[in-house]
Amino acid sequence: MSTQQEGKFQAIISHAKEYGFVFSSSEIYDGLSAVYDYGPYGSELKKNIRDYWWKAMTQLNENIVGIDAAIFMHPTTWKASGHVDSFSDPMIDNKDSKKRYRVDHLIEAKAAELAEAGDQAAADALIADMDRLLAADDYKGLRQLLDDQKIVCSISKTANWTDIRQFNLMFDTQLGSVTEEANTIYLRPETAQGIFVNFLNVQKTARMKIPFGIAQTGKAFRNEIVARQFIFRMREFEQMEMQFFVRPGTELEWYEKWKQTRLEWHLSMGTPKEKLRFHDHVKLAHYANAAVDIEFEFPFGFKELEGIHSRTDYDLSRHQEFSGKKLTYFDTEINKHYVPYVVETSIGLDRMFLAVLSNSYEEETITKEDGSTDQRVVLHIAPKIAPVKLAIFPLTKKDGLPELAHEIYKKCAEQFRCFYEVKDAIGKRYRRQDAIGTPFCVTVDHQSLEDQTVTIRHRDSMEQQRIKIADLISTVQAAL
Amino acid sequence: MSTQQEGKFQAIISHAKEYGFVFSSSEIYDGLSAVYDYGPYGSELKKNIRDYWWKAMTQLNENIVGIDAAIFMHPTTWKASGHVDSFSDPMIDNKDSKKRYRVDHLIEAKAAELAEAGDQAAADALIADMDRLLAADDYKGLRQLLDDQKIVCSISKTANWTDIRQFNLMFDTQLGSVTEEANTIYLRPETAQGIFVNFLNVQKTARMKIPFGIAQTGKAFRNEIVARQFIFRMREFEQMEMQFFVRPGTELEWYEKWKQTRLEWHLSMGTPKEKLRFHDHVKLAHYANAAVDIEFEFPFGFKELEGIHSRTDYDLSRHQEFSGKKLTYFDTEINKHYVPYVVETSIGLDRMFLAVLSNSYEEETITKEDGSTDQRVVLHIAPKIAPVKLAIFPLTKKDGLPELAHEIYKKCAEQFRCFYEVKDAIGKRYRRQDAIGTPFCVTVDHQSLEDQTVTIRHRDSMEQQRIKIADLISTVQAAL
Repeated sequence: MSTQQEGKFQAIISHAKEYGFVFSSSEIYDGLSAVYDYGPYGSELKKNIRDYWWKAMTQLNENIVGIDAAIFMHPTTWKASGHVDSFSDPMIDNKDSKKRYRVDHLIEAKAAELAEAGDQAAADALIADMDRLLAADDYKGLRQLLDDQKIVCSISKTANWTDIRQFNLMFDTQLGSVTEEANTIYLRPETAQGIFVNFLNVQKTARMKIPFGIAQTGKAFRNEIVARQFIFRMREFEQMEMQFFVRPGTELEWYEKWKQTRLEWHLSMGTPKEKLRFHDHVKLAHYANAAVDIEFEFPFGFKELEGIHSRTDYDLSRHQEFSGKKLTYFDTEINKHYVPYVVETSIGLDRMFLAVLSNSYEEETITKEDGSTDQRVVLHIAPKIAPVKLAIFPLTKKDGLPELAHEIYKKCAEQFRCFYEVKDAIGKRYRRQDAIGTPFCVTVDHQSLEDQTVTIRHRDSMEQQRIKIADLISTVQAAL
Repeated sequence: MSTQQEGKFQAIISHAKEYGFVFSSSEIYDGLSAVYDYGPYGSELKKNIRDYWWKAMTQLNENIVGIDAAIFMHPTTWKASGHVDSFSDPMIDNKDSKKRYRVDHLIEAKAAELAEAGDQAAADALIADMDRLLAADDYKGLRQLLDDQKIVCSISKTANWTDIRQFNLMFDTQLGSVTEEANTIYLRPETAQGIFVNFLNVQKTARMKIPFGIAQTGKAFRNEIVARQFIFRMREFEQMEMQFFVRPGTELEWYEKWKQTRLEWHLSMGTPKEKLRFHDHVKLAHYANAAVDIEFEFPFGFKELEGIHSRTDYDLSRHQEFSGKKLTYFDTEINKHYVPYVVETSIGLDRMFLAVLSNSYEEETITKEDGSTDQRVVLHIAPKIAPVKLAIFPLTKKDGLPELAHEIYKKCAEQFRCFYEVKDAIGKRYRRQDAIGTPFCVTVDHQSLEDQTVTIRHRDSMEQQRIKIADLISTVQAAL
C-alpha cells in the first residue's frame, strides 16, 4: 500500500467510527481482535445491502428460493465437506517466545524484506518455493526453508522453531448437558453447507425444478490466525451465498451466466466498472471445474469480493456418502435420476460494506461563490442502499417552521428512513448528512408556509431546487 | 396439553415441515437436538416479521436507532452482566445411569405424577417447597427433597444421586491461535449486552438525547438442558431487543408506555386480543424494579412471547465497574451527569414466528354450492408479513394465457414477492397458496386477453372479483 492509499484507508476507518458505521467489538473492554460491531448508520447500510442482494436473488428470480439455516449443524456435515480434515493452516511455534505463527506469513514477511532490500528476484524465488511446498503439503521442506532463510521470531529473535503442524480454523463448542454424551460441534465456517444438507427438503417442499437456486445470508466463523485490514478479514463475518443446481454437463454455461449476472449486480450498486475485475483461479480446488473471483479495488489493492465456483456434484455426493441418504433429482425432461451439479455465487457482506464505503468516500474541496474554498467529506452511497434517504430541516426554530417540518418528517418516515434536525446552521446540518451519505436534504422555510414548497438539496451535486411538498415522497422514491 | 391441543400442535409442526417453513437442522444426519432451519417460506416469513419489528422500532421512532453487534464479545462482558457466575441451572447426575438432569425438572415430573394420581394438594405443596428452596439456593435442601420424595432416575430406576451442581448455560469456545494465549469466549446468551457496551459510542456518534433507544436483532445461544416444544425453546435462537435509556426516576412511566406500545404492535400483526395477556413477574430479578411478560396462547397454553423490563441502571453500572470507563450521560435540561436507567423490550423472533403459525393455522370445512363439503388448510397470515403476496395463474396452458400471466408476474415481482404457476387445476393451485398463506391469487383467462382484467381471489373469504390488470399492484399494496 502506498502512503497515500494507507492514508485514505485510515481516514475511512476513522470516518466509519466517528459517524457510527463500525466500532471495535466490546470497545470499552479494549476490543476483541478481528471482531467488529455495526453502529446506527452501519447497521442500516449493512441491512440495505443484504436486502438488496436478497431481493435480486429471490424476489426477482422465479427459480431461486431462500432458506435460513442454523449456525449449528450436525458435526458430520463438516466431515463430509472436508472441513474437519483439511480446513487448516500450517502453523509453527517459537520455543523461546512461545508465540505461534502461520508458516506462509513468516515466509511472505521474509520475501517482502528481500524485495524492500532491492532483491526482487530472491523474493520471487522464495514465494515460488513456498507455493510449491505448500501445494505438496511438504512440511519438512517448509521447515527447511525457514532454516535456510534464517527466518526468526520477531519477539525472541531466535530460530528455535517446533515442527510444523496443522491448525484447524473452525471454532468448536460442546452441545448438550450430559458430559459423557457431550458432542463437539462447530460454528459453521461457511453458509453453503446449510444449503446442501437442505437440498432435497427445499426441492420437494417448494416443488422446484432444475435448474433452480437456493439463497441464504448469515453468519460464519473462522479462527483466522492473522486477521487484518479492518472488516476485510474477520473472525465472525456474514456471507450471502446462492447455490444453483443444474443438470450435469450444463454447469459451465450457467457458470458463465452467473459470472455476468453477478458483475451486473455490482454495477447496479453504483460500483464503477474500472474498480472491478475478474480473476480466474489458477489452481482449482479439487471439487471445482471452474472458479473466478470478482475483485474490487480496495484502498489496499484489488482483492476478492465475491467468488463464483462451479463445484460439480462434489458436495451433494459427499453428503450422500456420509449420510447414506440419496440426494438425487429425477429430471422428467430426460427421464434420468442424477446428483445435480452446482454453480455457487458467494459474497462477503462485510467486504461488500467495505467496498461501498471505500468507493463512496470522498474528501472534496468546494469553491464557493465568493471564490473561497471549503472542505467536505461526503459518502456517495447509491440512494437505494443509503442508511438515511431524506433529512428534513426547518430553517429556523420559530414561526411554525419546526411544526410543518416535523409533519413532513412524520409522513415521509412511513415510507423510508428519514432524519429530522432543528439545531445548528443549515450548512452544518448538510455536512453531517453528507458524511453519512444521505442523498436528499429538505429545508422548510417561510415560503413553505405560504406555497407548500420546500428546497430539496442533492448530496452529490449540492444543487438545490424548489419542489412541492406533495411531490416529495415520489421524488425520493424515484431515486431508490 | 389436552389431546385436542396436542393434535393441533402436531398438525402445525407437520404443516411447517411439509410446506417448507421449518426443518430439523441437518435432517439428513438425523437432526441436531433443539436446532431448526427455516425453509423457503419460513425464511421469508421470519424475515418479514423481523423487518416489520425493525421498521416499527427504528424507522417509525425518531429517537430509536439500530445496531448490529457481533455474537462474539469480550469475555469480561459476561462477568459484568453476571452470566459467568449465575447463568446456570442446578443439575444432578444419577451415578448408575450416568444421566444428568435439571433438578427442577425431576421435581416437576414428580409433582405431575402426584397430580395425575389425584393428589393435587401434595403436588402443589411439592412445587411450593421446590420454589422456596430454589429461591434460597438451598441445594442441600433440594437434595433432601429428592430423597424424601423417593425420586428416581427414569433409566436406572435408582435414587443413587450425586450432589447438586450448577451448570452454566453459555456455550464457550477458544479464540485465537496461540494456545498459551487462547481466550475462552462465549456465544452471547442474549443480545442486550451488545447494546449496553456500545451505549456511549451510539449516543455520541448518532448524537442522541435522552430519552432514546437502541434496537437490535440477532442470534443468541443457550445450552438448554431440556429443549422442547419445537421452535419455542431452542439452543440457537434469534432475539429482537430494544433498550430505552431514560432519566432516573422516569423509568416507570416509560415502562408503562412500552407495555402499551408493544401490546399494540402485537395487535397490529393480526394477533387477536384474547390470545394475548400481561403476566407480571411475581419475583423480580435483582436488577429490575418492574417486569412483565406479554404471553400468547400457544397450543400448549399461555407462554412468554415478549418481556418488558425496567432494568434500572444495573447493566451500565456493572460495565462501568468492570471496564473502568465512565458510562454517564450529561443531561443539559437538568444540568446533571448520571448513569441512565433502562427499560427493555425483548422478544423472541422464533417464538413470534410460532405464534404467527399457531394463530393463523386453520383446518376449514367449506360447503360448496351443490351442498357437498370440502376441506382446506389455510394460514391466515397478515398480508404484510405473508411469505408470498400474490400468486398468478394462467387458466390454461395455451392461447397466449401463460405469456400474459407471466408478463403480469414479472411486473408485480418487482414490487413484492410473487409466485407463478401454470400446472394443475385452478382449485388445486388455490389450495397450495392457502397452505402457505398467500393473501391474493389472480387468474388470467380468455376474457383477460380481451379487456385486460383478471379475477382476483381473496384467501380468507375465498371471494373472487374482476379487476383491471392496471389496478392489480395498488390493490395488493393497499393490503400490505
